[in-house]
Amino acid sequence: MARRVERCSAEPADLSEAGIGEGVSEVIVTTRSASGEPNAAPVGVISESNRYFARLYEGSRTLSNVRETSKLAANVTSDAVLFVKSALGNLDEAEFSLFFSSSDSDYGFPVLSEASSWIIFETVFTESSLFQLTPVAVKISRKEVKAVNRGFNAVVEATILATRFGRAKDEGEKEETKKKMRFFAEIVEKCGGRREKEALSVLREKIKNYPSRL
Amino acid sequence: MARRVERCSAEPADLSEAGIGEGVSEVIVTTRSASGEPNAAPVGVISESNRYFARLYEGSRTLSNVRETSKLAANVTSDAVLFVKSALGNLDEAEFSLFFSSSDSDYGFPVLSEASSWIIFETVFTESSLFQLTPVAVKISRKEVKAVNRGFNAVVEATILATRFGRAKDEGEKEETKKKMRFFAEIVEKCGGRREKEALSVLREKIKNYPSRL
Repeated sequence: MARRVERCSAEPADLSEAGIGEGVSEVIVTTRSASGEPNAAPVGVISESNRYFARLYEGSRTLSNVRETSKLAANVTSDAVLFVKSALGNLDEAEFSLFFSSSDSDYGFPVLSEASSWIIFETVFTESSLFQLTPVAVKISRKEVKAVNRGFNAVVEATILATRFGRAKDEGEKEETKKKMRFFAEIVEKCGGRREKEALSVLREKIKNYPSRL
Repeated sequence: MARRVERCSAEPADLSEAGIGEGVSEVIVTTRSASGEPNAAPVGVISESNRYFARLYEGSRTLSNVRETSKLAANVTSDAVLFVKSALGNLDEAEFSLFFSSSDSDYGFPVLSEASSWIIFETVFTESSLFQLTPVAVKISRKEVKAVNRGFNAVVEATILATRFGRAKDEGEKEETKKKMRFFAEIVEKCGGRREKEALSVLREKIKNYPSRL
């Protein structure tokens, strides 16, 4: 059962037990449109003295949904495939489950079924593309011990590079990006487990129309 | 209390609960010399169908200790500072604690006090620099949820590059390595928490005699 959090906007809250530590935490943010359509995308949640922020980009489904509902859920996961799929498309309906709260009577709020934990935040626009996040519900499903897998990290980095590739300002920057992506792909091949290698295949499939392959 | 593992050499064992997953798990390996001197260094533990291996490099203290005692402990941690310090030197005595078993009457075996989990392995040399690892004791101290921090991952990558820098075969390779290190340092500055930023400072301090600074 998820825990409702006392709503006290702008009060600092410690979310480290739910997996959001100091600095920037890479999570998969789930949102829904006003009509209830779920969306998932990787986002960095910024933690500064137990205050939380996220930068949401113009043109993204995440931003338009947040404008419609003033809510997002940060899902903590170490599933490499979910990062790639949500970065370069959307997730299958089956990946989502719905959290119902008394304030959310019409639609439930989408979270990831397989997340180790999730936090639902209310969002307030601050400046530029930055939103302040206030937690309103938290669920911790699975605690574990896990050694660093460089292959997993490399999938995250390669995915970020892939999403930026289209915005490269010239051929030189594109070449540099592809070189970095090959560097990370080699780490995935060398250090990844099955799930990381599957993520790399999905990434390669998604970007196969890029000028030259990863 | 640590759990002793049934000793059945060459029998597969599932260590995923202790944090050693598929592919290569980056851990801090602790060893001791015949005379009881402890050492710590980052090592990748390779998992293949629940069989475990580690590649140990000629000239390393880890290899000479393993030759003397046929044992190593894999410590799972997400402490960036421990990765840097153990990669480019040794850890302070205070970082170690000793595990005593009936077969280890003279000296305890060193493990890391702050590890989330550790596994003590018996080692058998196979071929080239590869050792097969058979677990003989396991301790899981702390399970948690933790979102990916790119800053932490970047510390691990920058540390690996730093250890390879001295072996670069020419100026071109050195320049390429420094460029990658700057790329990762930027990620640490942007995404890391306090511990990751401290790790970067330690790394910069350790390598300050390199031809040009990170």
